[in-house]
Amino acid sequence: MLDWSHIYASRSSRMGASEIRELLKLLDQPDMISFAGGIPDPALFPTDVFEKAYRELFTSPAGHAALQYSVSEGYAPLREWIAGQMAEIGITCGIENIMITSGSQQALDYLGKLFISPGDTILAGWPTYLGALQAYNAYEPLYDRLEPYSNRSASDYRDAAKANGGAVKFAYALPDFANPTGETMDRTARERVLDLAGELDVAVIEDAAYQSLRYDGEAIPPILALDIERSGGIEQSRTIYCGSFSKTLSPGLRLGWVVAASPVISRLVLIKQASDLNSSTVNQMIMNSVARSAFADQVAKIKTAYQARRDAMLASLEKHMPAGVTWSRPEGGMFIWLRLPEGLDGGALLKRAVAEEKVAFVPGKAFFADGSGANTLRLSFSCSSPEKIETGISRLGKLFASALQPA
Amino acid sequence: MLDWSHIYASRSSRMGASEIRELLKLLDQPDMISFAGGIPDPALFPTDVFEKAYRELFTSPAGHAALQYSVSEGYAPLREWIAGQMAEIGITCGIENIMITSGSQQALDYLGKLFISPGDTILAGWPTYLGALQAYNAYEPLYDRLEPYSNRSASDYRDAAKANGGAVKFAYALPDFANPTGETMDRTARERVLDLAGELDVAVIEDAAYQSLRYDGEAIPPILALDIERSGGIEQSRTIYCGSFSKTLSPGLRLGWVVAASPVISRLVLIKQASDLNSSTVNQMIMNSVARSAFADQVAKIKTAYQARRDAMLASLEKHMPAGVTWSRPEGGMFIWLRLPEGLDGGALLKRAVAEEKVAFVPGKAFFADGSGANTLRLSFSCSSPEKIETGISRLGKLFASALQPA
Repeated sequence: MLDWSHIYASRSSRMGASEIRELLKLLDQPDMISFAGGIPDPALFPTDVFEKAYRELFTSPAGHAALQYSVSEGYAPLREWIAGQMAEIGITCGIENIMITSGSQQALDYLGKLFISPGDTILAGWPTYLGALQAYNAYEPLYDRLEPYSNRSASDYRDAAKANGGAVKFAYALPDFANPTGETMDRTARERVLDLAGELDVAVIEDAAYQSLRYDGEAIPPILALDIERSGGIEQSRTIYCGSFSKTLSPGLRLGWVVAASPVISRLVLIKQASDLNSSTVNQMIMNSVARSAFADQVAKIKTAYQARRDAMLASLEKHMPAGVTWSRPEGGMFIWLRLPEGLDGGALLKRAVAEEKVAFVPGKAFFADGSGANTLRLSFSCSSPEKIETGISRLGKLFASALQPA
Repeated sequence: MLDWSHIYASRSSRMGASEIRELLKLLDQPDMISFAGGIPDPALFPTDVFEKAYRELFTSPAGHAALQYSVSEGYAPLREWIAGQMAEIGITCGIENIMITSGSQQALDYLGKLFISPGDTILAGWPTYLGALQAYNAYEPLYDRLEPYSNRSASDYRDAAKANGGAVKFAYALPDFANPTGETMDRTARERVLDLAGELDVAVIEDAAYQSLRYDGEAIPPILALDIERSGGIEQSRTIYCGSFSKTLSPGLRLGWVVAASPVISRLVLIKQASDLNSSTVNQMIMNSVARSAFADQVAKIKTAYQARRDAMLASLEKHMPAGVTWSRPEGGMFIWLRLPEGLDGGALLKRAVAEEKVAFVPGKAFFADGSGANTLRLSFSCSSPEKIETGISRLGKLFASALQPA
């Protein structure tokens, strides 16, 4: 073996394996009940609609264009459809404000590349989406805690970043049914993030991957919609909105989108040109067709299914969890967040859960930029029937109760 | 408008628009004869084979898996097929040595991310593939000229890199029918690159995007095959091979692959996890099916077509170019490289060619990391019939002759 270490870039020391991705491999065991992956239920995918869309495309003259390179901005008809969707949630924009990405994960990577110099500071929740931390880490930032319910001042954030040798570049927020907590930011918290970003004169990255999946409660305007309302238009807005088809129609086509002021989109297009030229042409044409014919029906269908699973998991937790365990009550999305009594360790419990109970979840620690949160864990209800949820949660309840017994 | 400049990362100053990508927009004019884009002829895509593959996939139970997330390494059956192809050209490897990328462009981006710290030096041809320069530029390297036919010593390269505050990280080479020159490195030059990389103890990145498209002459082993021969196996090899389906089956699915020692692949998988999770699942499954059923036939078909176009372009150049213009005679690929007499400017001539003659090409300057090469240009013969090639080259000959007249 050659020694490669002296050839690697300094940033490579920040690149670690994802516990979640490694855990996905456990899903292949047929008798495992997995609450681990934050993925949609493949049984709910509208495969018939996709089959028809591919058949129509490849029996038409457009089949040749579908197999060719295309512009880095993305397929214009798909961007037009997205602009229409955005308008419905208060985000008035044109297609020049939209770039197609290979999943919203790619948008997070590109935004890190665009904004982060080594030593800069990112404001993010404790906990926050692990994939965002991984995407940003390649650009060597530091993290400070975004606390939209505190009164911590902009100058305090600014001074802390400066003391660390950089500047605050953006606040990263998942306002709706966040991964991993399932929690939603109320309007006041969203306004507070905008206030803070305005005082710091930095960007806000709004990760809206789960936004369509609200099961009850009242919809709150996206941060970008509030920004547009304040500032007078998207060109004056500092918020960058990242959307995804992965939780609604399909993650397998790897398609998401980013909405922002056009100078930011122009920069992101340059980054995309240099990194993968364009997202799959055929996938964009197919998604345009499928979204126009089936998006509303598909969202209605999966909301009904996931709502029943969320309800089942909340009921099972109530029934089986020992005293001292608390959890979030999400109004949408795919996740419930558990907090165990201090001293219990999610990672150690996962090993026991998999080996003794054939149940998987994600330990919460990986979602904390500061390495705290050892006593937390994430449960996903999206891929299990209410019956499996009841069985799995009852097994976890038994395990956690035994872990709480004095030795 | 907000002022975003203070939020951008320092690397963003290195991100510029691609003249080639901008030029692709010219292709939409129906009466333009374009020798600009380095793209396959869409009329030659095997749309019927793709239609059948999609129909079979989405009428089978595998349709659900095709729409789901998948592992970052890539779809194992596709990697197995690639391993078989690699073995045929002297690259013995297992699927643990192969990662699927979203086009070989993504491999170049990831390799830049893995290896380049700001101020490091990359060795590359003068000229070289513009997209590679754009991918690497995001990581802020310097460039030194890779001269496989000179006797410049390793210590000379090393000292120059050190004087610039970094170290040499890799040599980047396109050994077969290079973009933009169409030229092929002989075996001695490939061995010399390996010697040099060995003395410097750095990597070699072998960009093999056009390798399947040889029309005449004898195939020369890939640099990675020579490296394996010398070192005893892929795990001891320093060469990283980047392959692509874009020039053979389709660029629209955005699929390529990278072959390397397994520790490098493991690092690239972490980068892929953090940047776009996985390349499109459905596209990988379809490409596996299409490659197994149609790769050999498709390559044979396009080689026949492109060879005729290359022959037509070489004959037309011979007939129409004024004295003082010279060009390469490629044994494969898509490109012929023209050198005009000193003092002529490819950029200025392009503007006249488009406006006066309705012919497009790519000025050569963008392919030079040092900004030289103003009197060069790239012609692609892949997308034009022999008749259009004759018409277009005769118009260019007329234009260049007039530009050479004393004012």
